[in-house]
Amino acid sequence: MSKTIAVNAGSSTVKFKLFDMPSENVVAEGLIERIGMDKGHAKIKFGDGQVHEDERKFADHGEAVQYLLDQLISLKIVQTYDEITAVGHRIVAGGEFFKDSAVIDDDVMKKIDELSEYAPLHNPAELEGIKAFKKVLPDAFAVAVFDTSFHSDMPKMNALYSVPYEWYEKYGARRYGAHGTSHRYVAQRAAEMLGKPLDKLKLITCHLGAGASITAIKNGKSFDTSMGFSPLAGITMATRSGDVDPSLVNFMEHKLNIDSDEMIDILNHKSGLLGISGVSSDMRDVQAVADKGNQRAQLALDIDENTVVKYIGSYLAELNGADAIVFTAGVGENDKEFRQTIADRLSFFGVGVDPKKNDVRGVERDISSDDAKIKVLLIPTNEELMIVKDIERLRKAAK
Amino acid sequence: MSKTIAVNAGSSTVKFKLFDMPSENVVAEGLIERIGMDKGHAKIKFGDGQVHEDERKFADHGEAVQYLLDQLISLKIVQTYDEITAVGHRIVAGGEFFKDSAVIDDDVMKKIDELSEYAPLHNPAELEGIKAFKKVLPDAFAVAVFDTSFHSDMPKMNALYSVPYEWYEKYGARRYGAHGTSHRYVAQRAAEMLGKPLDKLKLITCHLGAGASITAIKNGKSFDTSMGFSPLAGITMATRSGDVDPSLVNFMEHKLNIDSDEMIDILNHKSGLLGISGVSSDMRDVQAVADKGNQRAQLALDIDENTVVKYIGSYLAELNGADAIVFTAGVGENDKEFRQTIADRLSFFGVGVDPKKNDVRGVERDISSDDAKIKVLLIPTNEELMIVKDIERLRKAAK
Repeated sequence: MSKTIAVNAGSSTVKFKLFDMPSENVVAEGLIERIGMDKGHAKIKFGDGQVHEDERKFADHGEAVQYLLDQLISLKIVQTYDEITAVGHRIVAGGEFFKDSAVIDDDVMKKIDELSEYAPLHNPAELEGIKAFKKVLPDAFAVAVFDTSFHSDMPKMNALYSVPYEWYEKYGARRYGAHGTSHRYVAQRAAEMLGKPLDKLKLITCHLGAGASITAIKNGKSFDTSMGFSPLAGITMATRSGDVDPSLVNFMEHKLNIDSDEMIDILNHKSGLLGISGVSSDMRDVQAVADKGNQRAQLALDIDENTVVKYIGSYLAELNGADAIVFTAGVGENDKEFRQTIADRLSFFGVGVDPKKNDVRGVERDISSDDAKIKVLLIPTNEELMIVKDIERLRKAAK
Repeated sequence: MSKTIAVNAGSSTVKFKLFDMPSENVVAEGLIERIGMDKGHAKIKFGDGQVHEDERKFADHGEAVQYLLDQLISLKIVQTYDEITAVGHRIVAGGEFFKDSAVIDDDVMKKIDELSEYAPLHNPAELEGIKAFKKVLPDAFAVAVFDTSFHSDMPKMNALYSVPYEWYEKYGARRYGAHGTSHRYVAQRAAEMLGKPLDKLKLITCHLGAGASITAIKNGKSFDTSMGFSPLAGITMATRSGDVDPSLVNFMEHKLNIDSDEMIDILNHKSGLLGISGVSSDMRDVQAVADKGNQRAQLALDIDENTVVKYIGSYLAELNGADAIVFTAGVGENDKEFRQTIADRLSFFGVGVDPKKNDVRGVERDISSDDAKIKVLLIPTNEELMIVKDIERLRKAAK
């Protein structure tokens, strides 16, 4: 009985999913929150819908991970620590250095640390997670899986901004994108569903959650993506602005008498659906209020929808057509009206969704209308499973 | 013999075009430069290819305009000042207030002054131009024609950014766009060429000069445009960056230790084709160097071309198809290879250019291939003529 754990560590959180191998069945998943605060919280789901919850202090990531493993044993999810033979860590920023997932060693850890300037809130916390697991499971095969690596080789034409070229050479100023693990996962599933090799397909994958990005995939590789240097850019998100004219940012800094750092904070946390609607960052809440006639809420939904339509259009143009458009993540998986509307608005291009096939949530399914020239696929994302598959691939390669 | 003059005043320049009315023939055009500097320069083209040039000091816009009118008389282009019965002024920022061109009175001048915060380099200079002409031609029918008014009624969905809504209400934070007079002119010409009423057409007009913008036009109105709050945003330009992730702007401010104002200056004047190529802001120069194997120059061209393809694609999606794509302004009118490449890259959508018809510069022509579902039109822009037509329209309405 061997197990693999996929880990997503934040500044005060550790999320995990534990897989039985080689079946890839999930045997437990959960979350430890408020690490380093007075009262932390742990929740582990396992077995047959059983839930373990606990409130206690977790001084640091090390304590949280130690607690987690102890619970896995006392809940009889694993017998011994040794049973967990592999750990996969999600890392936000891999820069241009990590073009694929990597077996973790001292050099890799050092590099993740160095790349913190591109994700100051994420990489340091994720490194804490790596260290914590390394301490408790020193012999496990540990792998880092980067949100950016899928996009790291996109054509320079799409990676670079129209700014002084030296900024790229000296400071790494380029488009890194994000959600790479999700886009990569659904692209592979799409190829299997379409029965064609991925490297022969042109796909547009829409990861629409609280954070959202759209990726153009050509020959199995990320060709372009809506998130930019940071996950702030691109389409309208729950609280993130997406694309904004830098002149407006500058103008508003003067008007509000705030500096650029405060501005970036507003654009990340008080903008998007929340900023326009003034109501909520959750599309369901915004929709509910819009349905009662709130015009700002309706405007927020209209803007959000329109940015998705426009990005899909720009990628259809850039790819000069596509085989399929894929919807995934929260909104993409669960909001059938959203999927239907986007497809209807793209009817000119031969995009079509069958309302009956589309009448579903979170199920892997071809929802195209019979006459669709460009297929529409609903594919629930599974970043943790992608991490597990990367581990297996790297483990084989390491042998 | 009545004449109308179209004026474009900058901080140290006055450009003009003098039209014979009602024939709309251009009888003179020219430029006074370096106003307020030690040595100014005036150039007037008239008659049969004749040119008058002069070097002298122009203390202010008033002196320059007085000089200009005196020259028009001494060059026998007009007999008396009174012959010029109308003056049209190009104004960059009309905000949400000016939804159409306006007959200039004290209120209009006050409003143009107030709107200076949206175009601090332009509106004050243009106001100087208005005052200078008002002084010399107090009885002429004077009209202000705004770069923004064509876009002022675009759907809120496209005008607003995904930022706190209060920014729009309190500070006018929205997309204003630019080149409105050009987009409006070529759209009207396109309707005539296609033999259909403008309000029944969906058009994508590409004004591709040193400054460049693309506009989606629906029912005769601007539906969306690539320039944003300012003319910085959108596609890659000669020295302007177009769209950039605000996080990258912030990151680079820290790296370079500069403030937001300095950053905006770099994004306006040292970016775009110039910034990427490091060679030139002129596409012809960049192309020449690229042809010799310079990779950065080639990259600049690729990025520029790609942003045009992507914006056209996004507008095709937003409009769910289009009747025609229009090319105008410097690159749009003169670069046949650019037009051909853009059309070829959009072949999936039924966009097609006939190489023979396209083998032309600056001529109004339908250059579509015979099988094109979406027509491609080459239409030289004429903002001054649009200004003249606006004057006539407003003069009739005022009677």
